[in-house]
Amino acid sequence: MLKRRLFTPGPTEVPPETLAAGARPILHHRKKEFGEIYTETVNNLKKVFVSEGEVFVFASSGTGAMEAAVTNFTSPGDKVLVIESGKFGERWKQLCGVFETDVNLLECRWGSSADPAEVEKILKENPGIKAVFSTLVETSTGALHPIEELASVSSSAGALLIVDAVSGLGCDRILTDEWGVDVVVSGSQKALMTPPGLGFICVNSRAAEVYRENNRKNYYWDLRKASKSLEKFQTPYTPSVNLIAGLLASLESINSEGMENVWARHRNLAAGTRAGIEAMGLEIFPENPACGLTAVKIPTPEKIGSGFVKHCQDRYGIVFAGGQADLKGKIFRIAHMGYYDELDVIKALAAVEAGLRDLGERDVLGRGVKAALEVFTT
Amino acid sequence: MLKRRLFTPGPTEVPPETLAAGARPILHHRKKEFGEIYTETVNNLKKVFVSEGEVFVFASSGTGAMEAAVTNFTSPGDKVLVIESGKFGERWKQLCGVFETDVNLLECRWGSSADPAEVEKILKENPGIKAVFSTLVETSTGALHPIEELASVSSSAGALLIVDAVSGLGCDRILTDEWGVDVVVSGSQKALMTPPGLGFICVNSRAAEVYRENNRKNYYWDLRKASKSLEKFQTPYTPSVNLIAGLLASLESINSEGMENVWARHRNLAAGTRAGIEAMGLEIFPENPACGLTAVKIPTPEKIGSGFVKHCQDRYGIVFAGGQADLKGKIFRIAHMGYYDELDVIKALAAVEAGLRDLGERDVLGRGVKAALEVFTT
Repeated sequence: MLKRRLFTPGPTEVPPETLAAGARPILHHRKKEFGEIYTETVNNLKKVFVSEGEVFVFASSGTGAMEAAVTNFTSPGDKVLVIESGKFGERWKQLCGVFETDVNLLECRWGSSADPAEVEKILKENPGIKAVFSTLVETSTGALHPIEELASVSSSAGALLIVDAVSGLGCDRILTDEWGVDVVVSGSQKALMTPPGLGFICVNSRAAEVYRENNRKNYYWDLRKASKSLEKFQTPYTPSVNLIAGLLASLESINSEGMENVWARHRNLAAGTRAGIEAMGLEIFPENPACGLTAVKIPTPEKIGSGFVKHCQDRYGIVFAGGQADLKGKIFRIAHMGYYDELDVIKALAAVEAGLRDLGERDVLGRGVKAALEVFTT
Repeated sequence: MLKRRLFTPGPTEVPPETLAAGARPILHHRKKEFGEIYTETVNNLKKVFVSEGEVFVFASSGTGAMEAAVTNFTSPGDKVLVIESGKFGERWKQLCGVFETDVNLLECRWGSSADPAEVEKILKENPGIKAVFSTLVETSTGALHPIEELASVSSSAGALLIVDAVSGLGCDRILTDEWGVDVVVSGSQKALMTPPGLGFICVNSRAAEVYRENNRKNYYWDLRKASKSLEKFQTPYTPSVNLIAGLLASLESINSEGMENVWARHRNLAAGTRAGIEAMGLEIFPENPACGLTAVKIPTPEKIGSGFVKHCQDRYGIVFAGGQADLKGKIFRIAHMGYYDELDVIKALAAVEAGLRDLGERDVLGRGVKAALEVFTT
């Protein structure tokens, strides 16, 4: 008997209460009972986005919500700036390309974060950029982007800031309205502690004017139609009623903890994880690590490489994520976003220690765990 | 205490085993365990479509899968023929319009079914039509379209037949490969007895050539990318892992009953429902009714109208669907698609009888139930 424990940056572990809420008998989406659940869900999501803007829920993955952002806030030929520092910045680039915008690209080394001064410079040198696309947390590298500063330079240049916070919302601090972030995209399966299958978009009033006037043809992702339905607390097409019932249970848990406390918990989990990793003599991959996941350099890729993640899974039931693309075999990623507490981090670190020893990499038993416990007890 | 019972044509009641399977701990979508579930799911779906073609699963509603069909099998300017005989034919028309095809429209009176001879004539008079869009069952009217015949005339004219079987798959007979239906779209929340949130597309080899060569830009719905992922039993973007785990439980139940038996069960339920309705002196709305739902004319719309559905729900917990658009207050719809048996039909008919009496429309207590039982016991 081996308990399977997900430490992957999406999907993540889900509270049993949420799974139970999602297993309730089916509700009809056009009846009052579902309307009440949906109203509560949207109101709870606003607290998580820290926004008074409109929040839309799609039956889709997070990528679907990203497509909705590109198709509702840009038209073919629009000049945009895409910040690419990993797999998900690359996804913005691909989407903006497929939907025929004129893409300016700021390529950052994987593991680095965008420099607001550089973004400001590009926006000045290229007048007429309509939107800047960034990620909050680049899941592929574990790097956090400086969204508050990016919002400031974008707004000064008259550009919308559109942020993929699929990773990050609910673990890394984002004050959508206060910082002036125009559009924030997210999904259910990461720090929001819900099974995958729901995509979200939060839109402030400045951005709402853009989608209302946008002339690109749209159907499934059409926010104008979604906005009309939202007035009646409905969706244009059949919503994922059970996933939404589950989501509401998780959102109520998040909001009863309170966003400041949720962020503080994740800061603490990240600090403990990093201290543990460093006490093992391992190196954190990103320069500016996020609070929702910790990407770690595999010390001897030629020796243990991708085998490390597989070993921890097979031997200890702990599922980490490996590296993607060029980082395959070079990093592993420990997620602590959502339904995770201090002793979860201890389990993960213990598996890292044991795995390193099993594979003959190094013997650091107890060192990471001790360092993390020191963080947690001070 | 009033038990709530859905008799709505989507979402429908879901077996407790499916809800339980959907509440299992989260699986990571890139790991072997999910790959096995997904392989089984796709193989089971093929049996339900009665097809050896490719089957794709989207995190989306059925409408999302319809959008995927339009965007993968047509390019802007392509000539298409849309059969419109209700709300969902209208959706094909809207989608084909938004995605800039050149739409020929065959408008049929709501409640009627398409005449294959008329479709044949239109295809002859308008050479170059690339695809014909139909519904299997027009949920808004309860009408069944003659898909086998439509496939034959479409194929003779060199056009693809693309069928919305969101309503119908798993209750009304469709032999995708044998009849030569090129593309069949469906969703999880009707006869497939699963919560909403999954869209499906089944594609035969003739249609596969079309999407492979199609030059329309696509991202979330891109079947070329989905096909590549499917070879590894994956999806391009995070799939709804828990809904898929639930779906698999329902599909296994469906396939262990066997498709011929599933269709026979629905024929029987439909026959019992119709006999009961007619024994109450009420009239079936569509000319060629489907097996998955029965749309019934409200005898005195000016007197009981939309209040009838509301009364049955409030007083007896039985949730019927009312009419949509022009049919509002004029019909009500009893769904018996998916997880329904004979005694479910009896409950529904009893509520109709009681509701008619409560509202002073007519006193037919026992008549519908008796007629249905006669069907079920012979």
